[in-house]
Amino acid sequence: MTAEVKPSPRERLLEAAATLTYRDGVGIGVEALCKAAGVSKRSMYQLFESKDGLLAASLKERASAYVATLLPVADDGRSPRERILHVFEQVESQAGTPDFRGCRYLAVQIELKDQSHPASRVAHQVKANLTVFFRSEAEQGGASDPDLLARQLGLVFDGASARAGIGADKLMGLIMPTASTLLDAAGMR
Amino acid sequence: MTAEVKPSPRERLLEAAATLTYRDGVGIGVEALCKAAGVSKRSMYQLFESKDGLLAASLKERASAYVATLLPVADDGRSPRERILHVFEQVESQAGTPDFRGCRYLAVQIELKDQSHPASRVAHQVKANLTVFFRSEAEQGGASDPDLLARQLGLVFDGASARAGIGADKLMGLIMPTASTLLDAAGMR
Repeated sequence: MTAEVKPSPRERLLEAAATLTYRDGVGIGVEALCKAAGVSKRSMYQLFESKDGLLAASLKERASAYVATLLPVADDGRSPRERILHVFEQVESQAGTPDFRGCRYLAVQIELKDQSHPASRVAHQVKANLTVFFRSEAEQGGASDPDLLARQLGLVFDGASARAGIGADKLMGLIMPTASTLLDAAGMR
Repeated sequence: MTAEVKPSPRERLLEAAATLTYRDGVGIGVEALCKAAGVSKRSMYQLFESKDGLLAASLKERASAYVATLLPVADDGRSPRERILHVFEQVESQAGTPDFRGCRYLAVQIELKDQSHPASRVAHQVKANLTVFFRSEAEQGGASDPDLLARQLGLVFDGASARAGIGADKLMGLIMPTASTLLDAAGMR
């Protein structure tokens, strides 16, 4: 038998912040967050200083899982083109799930409307890392203009998750052909 | 001399809602909206029933100006391809202005996270009309798959305005080549 380890107040707050802000937005109140986590406000402020701090920590905490869900593992033997398409396959697949509301790292920046907010800064960095991945694969795949292709793929990624998140498009038959056309135009192997 | 017509309480509330939600988000309070409009809360509730109603009305009110800013005039003698590219030139140009925070009709849907909210429904319809424009031009320009091209252009439009709105990209040298590549791939004249 494995002993169950009960999540700490800190972990419960991070989980509540991630779940509730994704579902309801960054305007969710401290009361609601503490209630969902089963943690007193006093403890919350001791652990995170502010709601902004909790929000930023919760985005940071999720970043490695987010990357692991989207990106292929290193040196998987596939071509740079296939490795890039892997990311868009994941987006297409996530967009088909009932609770999908788009990319949380995009949404939080649109909602906060403040690039200097600690949570915006975490989110900005996570998205910048995705562009770095695209840029690196583009270069290895011999793209004619790796910088342009990386920006284009970031644009398709955000446009696709935003549109799927608001129910404007289901992405089937859209995201893969769009990414492929841009990869073709860049001469990607 | 032209007599100055003072905007009505209704007009001032619509203007305040448009300006403040674009800058601060849909979470802006009724107090702040009424204060900016110089209208009592009592009058606001008489005119719009609820903040949700005001928000929806403000988005609807702006829709024709939004369309006029983005879309080319009917029968301007340009090719469907040029008429589509006109839209993306406008987005590129808007993205260069200091207060640009992306497309308000996308942002409001991402923020509200509720497709049945009256403001989401207005925003959804405005974006659907843009897709109808793309679809119609795609067909007239002989696109191989007008439905796919219209969806792709909607995706590029939203991805570009979202990324510019959060400061992830300035769009120069990105949005026009991306739209052009997709138009080329569809065989658009």
